[in-house]
Amino acid sequence: MKIAYLGPQSSFTDLAVKKAFPEEETLPFTTIPDCIEAVMDGEVDYAVVPLENALEGSVHITVDYLFHEADLAIVAELTSAIQQHLMVHPDWKDQPGQPEKIMSHPHALAQCHKFLRGTYKGVPLEQSTSTSAGAKFVSEHPESFLGAIGNELAAEHYGLAILHDHIHDVTYNHTRFIVLHKKHREVSIPHETSLHKTTLMVTLPKDRSGALHQVLSAFAWRQLNLSKIESRPLKTGLGDYFFLIDVDHELDDVLLPGAINEMEALGCSVKLVGHYPSFMLS
Amino acid sequence: MKIAYLGPQSSFTDLAVKKAFPEEETLPFTTIPDCIEAVMDGEVDYAVVPLENALEGSVHITVDYLFHEADLAIVAELTSAIQQHLMVHPDWKDQPGQPEKIMSHPHALAQCHKFLRGTYKGVPLEQSTSTSAGAKFVSEHPESFLGAIGNELAAEHYGLAILHDHIHDVTYNHTRFIVLHKKHREVSIPHETSLHKTTLMVTLPKDRSGALHQVLSAFAWRQLNLSKIESRPLKTGLGDYFFLIDVDHELDDVLLPGAINEMEALGCSVKLVGHYPSFMLS
Repeated sequence: MKIAYLGPQSSFTDLAVKKAFPEEETLPFTTIPDCIEAVMDGEVDYAVVPLENALEGSVHITVDYLFHEADLAIVAELTSAIQQHLMVHPDWKDQPGQPEKIMSHPHALAQCHKFLRGTYKGVPLEQSTSTSAGAKFVSEHPESFLGAIGNELAAEHYGLAILHDHIHDVTYNHTRFIVLHKKHREVSIPHETSLHKTTLMVTLPKDRSGALHQVLSAFAWRQLNLSKIESRPLKTGLGDYFFLIDVDHELDDVLLPGAINEMEALGCSVKLVGHYPSFMLS
Repeated sequence: MKIAYLGPQSSFTDLAVKKAFPEEETLPFTTIPDCIEAVMDGEVDYAVVPLENALEGSVHITVDYLFHEADLAIVAELTSAIQQHLMVHPDWKDQPGQPEKIMSHPHALAQCHKFLRGTYKGVPLEQSTSTSAGAKFVSEHPESFLGAIGNELAAEHYGLAILHDHIHDVTYNHTRFIVLHKKHREVSIPHETSLHKTTLMVTLPKDRSGALHQVLSAFAWRQLNLSKIESRPLKTGLGDYFFLIDVDHELDDVLLPGAINEMEALGCSVKLVGHYPSFMLS
């Protein structure tokens, strides 16, 4: 079984994949569309890509590509805490003073803003294209005292020593990743779960005032809880949207099919993107 | 009267500002937060920033900054068609053959993808930080046959000749800009309008299933049409959102205050971001 993931190696997606599929062969791809296309072309069996981050919001390229370009099913959701560490080349581990500069992806630098300002005030920060690109650069320049911010996998992969662990400013930062396959199937993931979700993409009939309210009524009167609703442009004109809707309920024989049938009878088009278990990776 | 806008000079925001406020003093700022802060600090009277594009969706930094950081009012909305042209230094206007390379912002290059592939297949494309940065580079290198893609203001400002006009692939690409001021007031804009809008930011009570449906009911039973609803992360944890809601109705004395009062009674917090006329700039 082969699994595509959003690379490079030691990215946060790689870390989530290693926890969920410890035994499988994995393959990094440069972009999210590349990961999705690899499943569609049959080059891999599954793809794992980020869908949403607690601070940044949805990853639009994932949502838009699944709506406009790809016909794949979400077969599992993986939620992972984003934990950042400051790492240096092992030769510099016991060096007093401050590194010449600290490198990482702009998001990671932003996530550690308070720590950096408190402990390393005045040390220049340099942006890298990914957290692991920063770690790679540090590993290749042992002659200089440099720091990189990234996850534990990057430290391990590039042989760096962690100088300060868990330096991210907020503890509630999580990312949701989705596992994609050509069609619905059960996947075996060695973690416990009791939560099942169903994801729909709904396009409303044009110019009908209150259509979104009608759609939400179909869920509300069945007490189907929505954990997310998000609008994205249809790319046909300003004010034309589709809605990504996550329902905290597994696809049953009565309630969800009833809601979907009603929405379609109201003139909506509904795409069932997946019904799947949700795993919190420790 | 001084107006801050998202620069650089000759940006699409600059073009919208020049059409809406032809007589006023304008000042470019590098980032959207810089524009907003300039109003809050009293350095300028108004700021004009992009809020949403028909192809790319909402400009999150604008929405998030207005929710989390700034207490400003939207006093007008400006909708502007995004039209791209290919420009060259006038010395090369009548040159046969193809330019050595064509420069622009990645979004503009993407918006002219079909034209470029059809008419200039094989010509290298180079990314610039803005459409006007590409035009500036072309104007400073008259010794080479170079192309830039941007709006008519960039051509005029940098003294370039338009070789092909209206080369964008789709005609329905528009951007919505908002005019921000410290508090609600009427602004004088020399265009006609019959459309008024009210914008709210609503935070739902935690863990109440169906709360969004209740909120939409408050609008639906009053036949208040929503032209936009969008969720953004509260930045307090995965699954915590606020909603940006545009109502196609001016702030009256009965209907909208009634809806706002009901939402607050249901435990929502509601921020009235503005009630304002909407202008289509020709």
